[in-house]
Order: sequence, then C-alpha cells, then structure tokens
Amino acid sequence: MRKISLRDTLEQITPIDQATLVAAQSRMNRQTKPQGSLGRLEEFAKRFVAISGQDQVQKKVVVTFAADHGVAEEGVSAFPREVTAQMVYNFLNGGAAINALARHVGAEVMVVDMGVDHDFATAGGLLHKKIARGTGNFRKGAAMSRQQAVQALETGIEIALSCKEAGVGLIGTGDMGIANTTASAAIASVLTGLDVAQVTHRGTGIDDATLKRKLWVIEAGLMFNQPDPEDPVDVLAKVGGFEIGGIAGLILGCALLKIPVVIDGFISTAGALIAAELHRHVKDYLFAAHQSVEIGHSHMLKKIGLQPIFDLGMRLGEGTGAALAMGVIEASLQAYREIASFEDAGVSEQES
Amino acid sequence: MRKISLRDTLEQITPIDQATLVAAQSRMNRQTKPQGSLGRLEEFAKRFVAISGQDQVQKKVVVTFAADHGVAEEGVSAFPREVTAQMVYNFLNGGAAINALARHVGAEVMVVDMGVDHDFATAGGLLHKKIARGTGNFRKGAAMSRQQAVQALETGIEIALSCKEAGVGLIGTGDMGIANTTASAAIASVLTGLDVAQVTHRGTGIDDATLKRKLWVIEAGLMFNQPDPEDPVDVLAKVGGFEIGGIAGLILGCALLKIPVVIDGFISTAGALIAAELHRHVKDYLFAAHQSVEIGHSHMLKKIGLQPIFDLGMRLGEGTGAALAMGVIEASLQAYREIASFEDAGVSEQES
Repeated sequence: MRKISLRDTLEQITPIDQATLVAAQSRMNRQTKPQGSLGRLEEFAKRFVAISGQDQVQKKVVVTFAADHGVAEEGVSAFPREVTAQMVYNFLNGGAAINALARHVGAEVMVVDMGVDHDFATAGGLLHKKIARGTGNFRKGAAMSRQQAVQALETGIEIALSCKEAGVGLIGTGDMGIANTTASAAIASVLTGLDVAQVTHRGTGIDDATLKRKLWVIEAGLMFNQPDPEDPVDVLAKVGGFEIGGIAGLILGCALLKIPVVIDGFISTAGALIAAELHRHVKDYLFAAHQSVEIGHSHMLKKIGLQPIFDLGMRLGEGTGAALAMGVIEASLQAYREIASFEDAGVSEQES
Repeated sequence: MRKISLRDTLEQITPIDQATLVAAQSRMNRQTKPQGSLGRLEEFAKRFVAISGQDQVQKKVVVTFAADHGVAEEGVSAFPREVTAQMVYNFLNGGAAINALARHVGAEVMVVDMGVDHDFATAGGLLHKKIARGTGNFRKGAAMSRQQAVQALETGIEIALSCKEAGVGLIGTGDMGIANTTASAAIASVLTGLDVAQVTHRGTGIDDATLKRKLWVIEAGLMFNQPDPEDPVDVLAKVGGFEIGGIAGLILGCALLKIPVVIDGFISTAGALIAAELHRHVKDYLFAAHQSVEIGHSHMLKKIGLQPIFDLGMRLGEGTGAALAMGVIEASLQAYREIASFEDAGVSEQES
C-alpha cells in the first residue's frame, strides 16, 4: 500500500468541479419529468458525478473500523467491553447487520482492527491496523497521544488509497466499539460548542442512571483534558477513539482522491466532523446516510452542513445506514443515466 | 383472469396476523444488535412477514395506471393533455423515471391504460383497461358514473389477482395523468375534511396564477358535485379519476390477497385513502413510500395512519417513490433473515 501523510493530504484536497455540477443538472432538466421533480435524488446524482466524474458505481465498500475505549471501564454502555471483539468475529463471519445490509446493496464489508483489546492473530479477512489495545480512559487522561491520533488518521487515508487502487467508486463508513457514543458525544460537544447534555444520549440503550453517569464522565473528561476546539487532531487525541480517527482519515483520503463517501450515524459523523474541521472542502464529498436517534447527531450534521438521506429511527452503527443509503445514491445515478430526454422520447415540454 | 367483485372483496378482507407480528419482533430481538436499533426497518420487516407469511420477495411489480382528466381543459397543469399518452409510450419504451428506478430494484413496470384519451391499439406491453377516453370535467359535472367508478376499482382488484397468480410478492402503485393532482386534491379535501387550499399545491410546477385557478376549479367542482364523504365510491365518481380508482382497487385486492403494497406519492395516496375508507383493515397492508412535496399529501397519510419511508422532496409520481421504497423494504427483510442471533454468534447480550 502507498502512503500519504496527513499534512500532504490536507494540502492537496481540492473543491469538487462546479462546471460538472451545473452540466449534470442541465442534463436532468432535459429528462422526461417535471424539472426538479426527483427532488434530492437529483442532488445526489449531480454531486456524485461532480465528485468522481463517473455516473455509475463499479465497486462499493463499507469500511467498518473497530476499537476499544478505555472509558468503557466507567460503565457507560449497556454492553460489556468484550462485545467489540465478539462483533468483529461476527462481521468476519458475515452474521452482523452490516453484512446483511451490505449484501443487499452489493457492497463488500472491510473490517479494520484499529485498536480492539483482543489478539486477532489468527483471524482471516481482517485488516490489521491495531494502534493499541484500546484507548486510555479519557475521564482521567488523554484517550491517545497526538502521534497515535495522526497514525489513526493516516491509516484511514491509506485505506482510501488502497480502495482507489482497487477501483472502489463509493465508500461507506462504519464503526464498532463499546463506549464509542461516549467518545463521539465528547467530540460533538467540543466541536459544536454545545453542552454535553445536548449531545449525549442512550447509545445501545442505557437506562437513566447510566445516562447520568455517562454525562458526568464526559464532563469530567472534558474538564480534565481541555481539548482545543480549534485543533481537531487534539480533540481526537484527548477524547476520541482509534476507529473515529480511522473514519476521519478515510474521509480525508476520499476527499483527496475524489471518491464519494457515505457517512453512517453518530460515530461516523463524529469522524466526519473532525475531517470537515480539518479541511473546508471535505463536506462536499460527503453524503449523510441517515438521522440517528442519538440527540447529538443532528447538531453535528448541521455543523458540517449535511442533510441526512433517511430518518428511520436507526441507532446501530457498523455502517448499516451507509449501506442502505448507497442503494439510494445508486438509484439516483440510474435515473441520471437512463431517463430519456423530452426530445428523444417525443414528449411535449412544460408550458410557460 | 379471474374476477372478484368490489362487494366480495370488501366482505373478505381480514386483519393481518398479530401472532406473526409478535413472533417476528421476538426473532429480531435475539439478533446481534441492540434491541430495536434498526428502527423502522424492524417495523417494515415484521409487517411484511405478518402480511404475507413470507420473509423474502420473489417478484416485484410497480403498476402504473394512466388516465386523462376532463378537468385538464380548465388549464390546471403545466403540461398539455397529450403528455399523458406520450408518457405511456415512454413507459412502454423504458425511458421514463419509473423504468429507471424499477430496474434499479429489479421490479417490473406494468402499465395500465385506465382511460387515456388516445387509441393505443397497436401498443405492445400495455394492459388495455380503458373505461373511457378521459373523465368528464368535474368542475361542471361528475368525473364519471358510479358504475364506472366501480369498474375502475374492480379493474384494480383484477390486477391484484393476476399478480397473485403470477407470484408477485410486493406491489407498488403508480400513476400518470395530466391534471390528476387536481382530482387528488379534491378527493383529499372531501375525505380529510380540510379546506381545498390546505391540500392543493403546484403539481408538476404551476405558477401562482394557475394555482389560483386550480383552487377555484376544485372549489367549484366540489360545490357542484357535493360528493358524500361517507361514501368513498361517490367521491371517486364525482371528482376522481380512472387511474385513482385503479390504484384504490389494486390496494383493496392486495389487502384481500395479503400482498404487501407500497403506495407512491400524492395521487397514489388519494387512491389509498379511498381504499382505506372503504375498509378499516386496508391500512395495515400499506407502506407509504415517501413524503411528497404536495402539501395535501401529509394530511392524507395522517388520515390513513401511515408514516412515509422517505422524505426526499420528490413530486414525480409514476410509482417512482414506490420503486425506491421497495429497496428499503427488501433490505429490512434481508436483515430479518440474515442477522445472526446472540447465541449463534457467541456475542454477549445486553446487561441490565
């Protein structure tokens, strides 16, 4: 695999092509339908075309990054820590929700160990990128060093590069990591400037007492670490997670390489927000799959400047929403490619 | 084709199976994901299973009903009347938006001439069910006779029967008919009890002056015809359309035969509302594809008791939203079938 540094990536990201965007809309305006009547499908199609220069997808991949979180020891999740590793095996065996939904849209699932507290030595089909066996507990110290944060980001960039080389035309992001809504809520609070209570929710389904503890843990962690909202890498290092860094890096790599990327829910959006804060053009390469049940999600989407495709009350992660949204993006491209023009079909145009 | 009367259909529709609904949710609760975390996908899957007894779709069809409207002569649309027939040819040639989106989900498009003002004698691939060459102008008379309304409904029922016999497991509804948002708005006003202005919008994209005329035409038509809100067949006859009757009949047939049916946007929902008013169990067989831009749409969905799957600013009709939503329903079934249980995958369950 080729490598490219975070610094070089940030220097080389360019805007999407505005002329292509306009030309794509003109094409759709000549198709046999009232102008604009496919609504946001038209937005998806033209943005996909403007990003990639392609009007169809050859190969799709959902990249699911897994890592453990030191803060899990604070009892902030409804599931025990070992579930992260167990779910990685479930992904590799094809038994998880992301496998089913990726199969539905014909996408491959790439599973990346960014820092699970487990030795996967014998596991086939896993991308081994372990930075450490879980982050530190951010309530009482930094989750990771700045160097590890950069390593996580550069791992994501590297994966984007390998996807590009393999001809992948559409990428989805996914996550697995017990306690990672805690880390994501901390990131959301720092980067949106909102109170912890406005962006922290029930994750996998915690009760009131656990939610109260989760809020306190995040507040204590932010107080202790004082992450700098002007420095997204610092935020990632102090209260983030290895999988969140991987997602942010993957997104930066996609922006660099002009691969459209669909972000999943709350955790993926925390990664996307870090990436978007690192470079102002990143958001134009992103499609927001869905509106999560997590209350902090819409605030992060708004901060980035994205509107979700679905709102189906999902809160699963793994990349499940992203897989589902890939189908809609491909539908928009099929409409873009295949609807006849008024002229070709001999249909009378709009009056007035 | 077998036939079944409207009366027999209404007598034989039964509720969906509640025990299956509960069993399906139990199955999903044992799958390796936080309980309920797939949100509405779980609702779609369990309802599909409870309706049909199946957990996958063998064959999908979008039925696009076309008809002309006498009220088009009032100048209520942005497109000339001949576009109805031109678009039917476009459907048959595979060049319309519905063709592209149906191909995307692997659905067949069945095009039905319910009453287009054109002689399709030589057109292959069209289902010939013409009741008349367009309805009457409902501003100054009934759109059709009560007998024609029953004929339209029974044609839809007949199509449901033939789909059942052909092994179709999921049906979408679609429409084509210049001026049919005018008829649908009239139906919406009568059956929801709302003012015409609250349910009437720009259709294919009319300007303010045309919208003003459209409002006046509907109000005049309702005044003249006095459709009885307690008698949905009377509403269909007086201010409806042949394609709307076909859609309503198809839906009744699906409820009778336990075929899940996805309704498209504004016009399809007018048909669905007629069907739902004719029998209280109909709504449990329906999936609402999307929220149309048409302002009256949400009122009709609310009246039926449905929540749309998508909200993408679409306003095209033809069955385009229904085709898109079929993909989501199938995704929910794939998740239902394929996600491993906690036990099988060796994943620890939720604490507390």
